[in-house]
Amino acid sequence: MNDRRSIRRYKKEEISQELLDELFTKAFRASNTGNMQAYSVIVTRDMEMKKKLAPLHFNQRMITEAPVVLTFCADFHRFSKWCEASDAEPCYDNFLSFFAGATDALLAAQTFAVAAEQAGLGLCYLGTTNYNAAEIAEVLQLPELVLPITTITVGYPDEMPAQSDRLPLNAIVHHEVYDDKQDIKALYAAKEALPENHAFVHENNKQTLAQVFTDIRYNRATNETCSEKLLAAIKAAKFFK
Amino acid sequence: MNDRRSIRRYKKEEISQELLDELFTKAFRASNTGNMQAYSVIVTRDMEMKKKLAPLHFNQRMITEAPVVLTFCADFHRFSKWCEASDAEPCYDNFLSFFAGATDALLAAQTFAVAAEQAGLGLCYLGTTNYNAAEIAEVLQLPELVLPITTITVGYPDEMPAQSDRLPLNAIVHHEVYDDKQDIKALYAAKEALPENHAFVHENNKQTLAQVFTDIRYNRATNETCSEKLLAAIKAAKFFK
Repeated sequence: MNDRRSIRRYKKEEISQELLDELFTKAFRASNTGNMQAYSVIVTRDMEMKKKLAPLHFNQRMITEAPVVLTFCADFHRFSKWCEASDAEPCYDNFLSFFAGATDALLAAQTFAVAAEQAGLGLCYLGTTNYNAAEIAEVLQLPELVLPITTITVGYPDEMPAQSDRLPLNAIVHHEVYDDKQDIKALYAAKEALPENHAFVHENNKQTLAQVFTDIRYNRATNETCSEKLLAAIKAAKFFK
Repeated sequence: MNDRRSIRRYKKEEISQELLDELFTKAFRASNTGNMQAYSVIVTRDMEMKKKLAPLHFNQRMITEAPVVLTFCADFHRFSKWCEASDAEPCYDNFLSFFAGATDALLAAQTFAVAAEQAGLGLCYLGTTNYNAAEIAEVLQLPELVLPITTITVGYPDEMPAQSDRLPLNAIVHHEVYDDKQDIKALYAAKEALPENHAFVHENNKQTLAQVFTDIRYNRATNETCSEKLLAAIKAAKFFK
């Protein structure tokens, strides 16, 4: 687990359904809300489907090049149908339930990720799922009370990139209460000093590494437009009562 | 990973900070959004702090009985401070950033969970974190742009409960598109047939297992009240532009 890295290039080799099912079995053992298992996974192997998904993930090559694309969804549709079939009135059309389903989906996704990596597979998460949730839901024909939360592309690794850096533990871990007196520049000094981050600042014609994030990668206009889109998608999925 | 179960009773033995740091190191290797690591963890060991947290988690005994309580938070405060110290204007006071931070926090939490279980520890997630997020934030002195997402109680196991059931894989996994023609009663038949679930229905004076969920455990009144509370907490943390 200390040696992991995201993998974005894959061999052409398929992943057997048997292996995938073994990994799902482990993934679905993860903790979840009240054992309702309020999530679903859509498996995409078909190239036509990958081509429909690709633009919704900004045409990142992993979508069409990975043998398997997994979309993990919050899902209270199945549970609600079970309630209706059991003389019970479902009541999961609200934000708390959405967040519980999203949590369940993410814990299952990450358990899948760890199990897959331990089995020799490589994978990459696509955060773009939150940018185009409604459009992805349409492609995957998701009914109400089902919304995509994250996407993982999976395959046998065909690259071994360098590990990305991480902040020191004391940037992240607080004891008893939040320490708001951290020396921020010291915590980010090693990150800023990395040659690849110097190059990153230079390529983007910026003065500081932080500006690459605020002005380009995660800028205000995109963040605010996509916040509205994500909230609209949650409402459209009937998760906002 | 196939043998795991949540553990709610712990030995009095402390967890060394060294072991905790090893597990955090693995956890923070998890995938995250743009390598911003938009999360923090608050470690609670102090009994006075546990006693403040306990009622916010409906006095579940694990809070005061576990040697360590971990509150995983979405955190764009640290990143925003770094931006400000780097001539960059932070723009993470919006819902998309909240959701990115929540995702990062949950992937780190689950990686911690898997690593901790593989190291012989036992743990339990507390979904109550989403019910009282603002109140927990106050106890832990979280600044703006930091919000608790989930809580894990951790310790050396002092019980070995039976594994809880899981739905069959074909309830959860869909191929290419969502299959809305599933035979719901068949998918839930094994769950409904379990002796412990029969007992659960009987103890709660209900006719069906689903009614125990809709009328008692996750009922409409609580779901809707807590949805409003959670949204208000997200807004109060300035994550809703």
